[in-house]
Amino acid sequence: MKNADLLTGITTTGTPHLGNYVGAIRPAIKSSKKKDKLSYYFLADYHAIIKCQKPERIIKSTLEVAATWIALGLDTDKSIFYRQTDIPEILELTWILSCITSKGLMNRAHAYKASLTQNRIDKRKDLEKNITMGLFNYPILMAADILMFNADKIPVGKDQIQHIEMARDIAVKFNNTYGKYFILPEAVVDEKIPILSGVDGRKMSKSYDNTIPLFESEKHLRKLIMKIKTNSLSPEEPKDYSTSILFAIYQAFAESNEIKEMKERYKKGIAWGVMKQELFELLNEVLKQPRQEYNKLIKSPDYIEDILKKGAQRAREYSVPFLGKIKKSIGIQIIR
Amino acid sequence: MKNADLLTGITTTGTPHLGNYVGAIRPAIKSSKKKDKLSYYFLADYHAIIKCQKPERIIKSTLEVAATWIALGLDTDKSIFYRQTDIPEILELTWILSCITSKGLMNRAHAYKASLTQNRIDKRKDLEKNITMGLFNYPILMAADILMFNADKIPVGKDQIQHIEMARDIAVKFNNTYGKYFILPEAVVDEKIPILSGVDGRKMSKSYDNTIPLFESEKHLRKLIMKIKTNSLSPEEPKDYSTSILFAIYQAFAESNEIKEMKERYKKGIAWGVMKQELFELLNEVLKQPRQEYNKLIKSPDYIEDILKKGAQRAREYSVPFLGKIKKSIGIQIIR
Repeated sequence: MKNADLLTGITTTGTPHLGNYVGAIRPAIKSSKKKDKLSYYFLADYHAIIKCQKPERIIKSTLEVAATWIALGLDTDKSIFYRQTDIPEILELTWILSCITSKGLMNRAHAYKASLTQNRIDKRKDLEKNITMGLFNYPILMAADILMFNADKIPVGKDQIQHIEMARDIAVKFNNTYGKYFILPEAVVDEKIPILSGVDGRKMSKSYDNTIPLFESEKHLRKLIMKIKTNSLSPEEPKDYSTSILFAIYQAFAESNEIKEMKERYKKGIAWGVMKQELFELLNEVLKQPRQEYNKLIKSPDYIEDILKKGAQRAREYSVPFLGKIKKSIGIQIIR
Repeated sequence: MKNADLLTGITTTGTPHLGNYVGAIRPAIKSSKKKDKLSYYFLADYHAIIKCQKPERIIKSTLEVAATWIALGLDTDKSIFYRQTDIPEILELTWILSCITSKGLMNRAHAYKASLTQNRIDKRKDLEKNITMGLFNYPILMAADILMFNADKIPVGKDQIQHIEMARDIAVKFNNTYGKYFILPEAVVDEKIPILSGVDGRKMSKSYDNTIPLFESEKHLRKLIMKIKTNSLSPEEPKDYSTSILFAIYQAFAESNEIKEMKERYKKGIAWGVMKQELFELLNEVLKQPRQEYNKLIKSPDYIEDILKKGAQRAREYSVPFLGKIKKSIGIQIIR
């Protein structure tokens, strides 16, 4: 098996929504179709347990996320689609890397520092309250996810750049200590990928409870779109498309000529009700066919499980021998 | 496979010496012979890489340690003798436990605090200098070593009691969060086990470079014994056995009637040269036969490897299904 030209992890704590689709799923599936490039995609369930101690939610989300990616056209024959927890080598590598990772590096991780700040704001005596070792170790697990497959490019949002830099630092440290085993991964940030707002105008996110799930029923999809925040301008009044949540979502799905036309209709003063109906129709058009596929898949967990098991098998064709080499380099498992 | 009634880890960074034998190996082998008790013994090579980044030393030590325990009579059919790195489930469990372990708990670990203190003494600006995440995470790996086999009793020195308490804390936290999966391990400290001094009078330890390796040649053993520190009392002068390093080592190996007799000879004023010869003869008598066995074993790494592989296979009869249950309890790998 070849190393990963591209690698993407997908958390399994929520139900995939429009923001996930536009920000991560769509670009990932697009780049998975590149010729001569091997992409690895994994369900990050060992990351999920850092934040989520509700087993039912993780079980449900894992199934939903896998079904979503397959329904939206991920080519699971060309690329490698697997579940992190099916690759035990990743956890072994996590430990090996932790032994050459300085604690100081982890002290500087954004997610950890954000938790400290929150505790400071909440005026807690114990600034480390509610901070687990899972959270603190998280950048090392992420480094292992990447380095296990010598992944080259990692498409990420800006907030994840630091983690890729840490993975590089850790790889450099290992290479300097034991020999050049790891290639240095690179973060790829696509500034053109839009970040969608949720129904309330804040970034669409599970934690704000403002998402539009991808594969709700038609009826529910319409209902959610009708809830999207607008201003109080009356029909006929000209409207600013650049500040409109409805338009931002529309733009992320429409063709360029449709977008152009819609800008004109905003200037002329499209009624919010009409715009909502337009957006619903556009989204429903795009999502109709994958929604059918998704609903079929979600009823066939065995089928999904088989795909994931096949992906894990292929991923381990790389990870098993590679971890063997790593272990030899550090002096373990070579009595013979 | 049954859970571990007793569990002992053995670090693989040095050559086993008299202090290891008296303090750990001898009592462990003795308790391994207890009827109706199943003992687990493992070479802690994933612990070794925390402190040691010299692969050759770990390779050499792993072979030497395994050969030593077998030569000294460990029953590898009755007990389970394995290498930590052959049980990948332990590293998965380490991650799972880290997600429910508060960082505050690790902040209080002795080994970590000792490193901070050393940096303070050395007047370093960065108090976390040279502290790796391996060192910081070490108590979690140790908890996983223990909890992976639901080990009941853990024979330890006093300095390790805290780690067993941490393993209990972590087990309680897991049980409260996900259900009662772990039994709570207990530290067993045998106050009667002597702590041997090295040739210079300090505690016998690899880090002081004052050890008497178990299976050096007869010639070298004599040479090392001749180097043991004494005072300047001349022959004939009465001597205090209670402060004599030579006597302390003698006492750890001799029969009770021999000990009694030797006390008399101290009172009468045994010459240091004579005492050294007596000690040499006693040790050589005890070590002669296992030394022959050891020298055979060390030339048969394949034989040792087979024993360890067999041990790992038996250990995994417990760890594989048990980790499966743990994973299900936290919500991973159950799409079906």
